[in-house]
Amino acid sequence: MTVTIIGVGLIGGSMALKLKNQQFASKIYGVDFNEQNLHKALELKIIDEAVNLEFAIKNSDLIILAIPVDSSQKLLPKILDFCTENQTVMDVGSTKFEITKGIKNHINKSRFVASHPMWGTENSGPGAATSDAFGGRAAVICEAENSATDSLELVKKVYENLEMNLLYMSSEDHDIHTAYISHISHITSYALANTVLEKEKEEDTIFQLASSGFSSTVRLAKSHPEMWVPIFKQNKENVLDVLNEHISQLRKFKSALEKDNFEYLEELISNANKIRGILK
Amino acid sequence: MTVTIIGVGLIGGSMALKLKNQQFASKIYGVDFNEQNLHKALELKIIDEAVNLEFAIKNSDLIILAIPVDSSQKLLPKILDFCTENQTVMDVGSTKFEITKGIKNHINKSRFVASHPMWGTENSGPGAATSDAFGGRAAVICEAENSATDSLELVKKVYENLEMNLLYMSSEDHDIHTAYISHISHITSYALANTVLEKEKEEDTIFQLASSGFSSTVRLAKSHPEMWVPIFKQNKENVLDVLNEHISQLRKFKSALEKDNFEYLEELISNANKIRGILK
Repeated sequence: MTVTIIGVGLIGGSMALKLKNQQFASKIYGVDFNEQNLHKALELKIIDEAVNLEFAIKNSDLIILAIPVDSSQKLLPKILDFCTENQTVMDVGSTKFEITKGIKNHINKSRFVASHPMWGTENSGPGAATSDAFGGRAAVICEAENSATDSLELVKKVYENLEMNLLYMSSEDHDIHTAYISHISHITSYALANTVLEKEKEEDTIFQLASSGFSSTVRLAKSHPEMWVPIFKQNKENVLDVLNEHISQLRKFKSALEKDNFEYLEELISNANKIRGILK
Repeated sequence: MTVTIIGVGLIGGSMALKLKNQQFASKIYGVDFNEQNLHKALELKIIDEAVNLEFAIKNSDLIILAIPVDSSQKLLPKILDFCTENQTVMDVGSTKFEITKGIKNHINKSRFVASHPMWGTENSGPGAATSDAFGGRAAVICEAENSATDSLELVKKVYENLEMNLLYMSSEDHDIHTAYISHISHITSYALANTVLEKEKEEDTIFQLASSGFSSTVRLAKSHPEMWVPIFKQNKENVLDVLNEHISQLRKFKSALEKDNFEYLEELISNANKIRGILK
């Protein structure tokens, strides 16, 4: 099986490493507009060969889009234009509605499988790629009914090889759920970092005092805008919905404190504690 | 050295384990109003003996207060009433202003050292205690000038044995800094948990989809109200200050999204990324 990874960063690079390790891919081509990343991916043996997009499309059984969601959306129809019935294209982006909408009327739309492995770190680039990624986490396939049976089976095998647990849902449902359990966490984390950076001008104090709790809460604030601005843009309505709810939840804490209503504060915290039963 | 731990939970229990391992403490007494915790601490060999408060005060060189900050504040003057010049009392609470204010005029105030080891987890009770805690983290001593030289030296030795890096500051400064780098993280995390619990009624979906990012952002939301309500109460003004700033930072994200101002969104995220240079 010859696999092309478009975007040899954290996610694409980690997939390449694991699919090669598992002997699922016999050959891995890498495509990336960032020459430095391509070079690094070759050096780290994440890919076997750096090629251009045209060559990749002609010579691969499976093409994996692992670039920012706006770039994937633009590139996908162009790749599908040249796809034969023996080829499959998949993406791994954090939003699913816009990308599936964009190819709704494409003649080769059945060669595409929309998916999202629920794994990532605050780091980026091929240097952050690891073959230990993905295992045990959930991966989502969206609009499975629009994909050809053989393409769908192939992508399922990809996720089996990544040792992920598959879930199926509509693109709309995916984007609502990820707004809650991933996108809002990033906004919260960015805003928390900005809060501390705004108020604490003595950076040494932050660095020396920062507890493990703070570090884990702001970890995501290290994530790059190149990846995240397009996600927020594509999932704007859902993200705004959850953000409004989050601000109103924070206001409840503010009001409890301002009014010295510590019974209410305890109630708010006890309710939040329920997350313990859900997230092991 | 005979040490009494008042409150044999996560922090008190972890200190006991480490101080015994390091042979700093030859005997450790445990005092706890929770009989179940006392029993568990004995069973786990965290303490050598469960005793009552009166016996502990009479028979210890060092008394460590590791209970919620409101309980410490109430109990400290009563313990100091019975303290001799050969005994030292220290606390390990997350707020420092109220406890130091409460004994400002106590005749034995110099036997007390106010301190705060910057370590903790979302878990509680002696079952969560570990001898691996504390190492490499910061510990703060406040109002060191109000403590007797021998008491201060003893508490410094405690933190040396816990392998922590000591910082000195006023109680006021401590409470401002911890509002930024610990207390606000907890409120954010609680509010985020409540946001998700409010909106996502299908709990199975949260559990299955939750990414590692979400888990790390809501980890602190598992922390119990018994510990955190008193902290927020004692540090109310600082916490409200930071909470207001945090809400206004979140509103900037909201406004950028609502106005489709993605350049501003990128700016907000790039600014937050600066935390990468500060927190390794």
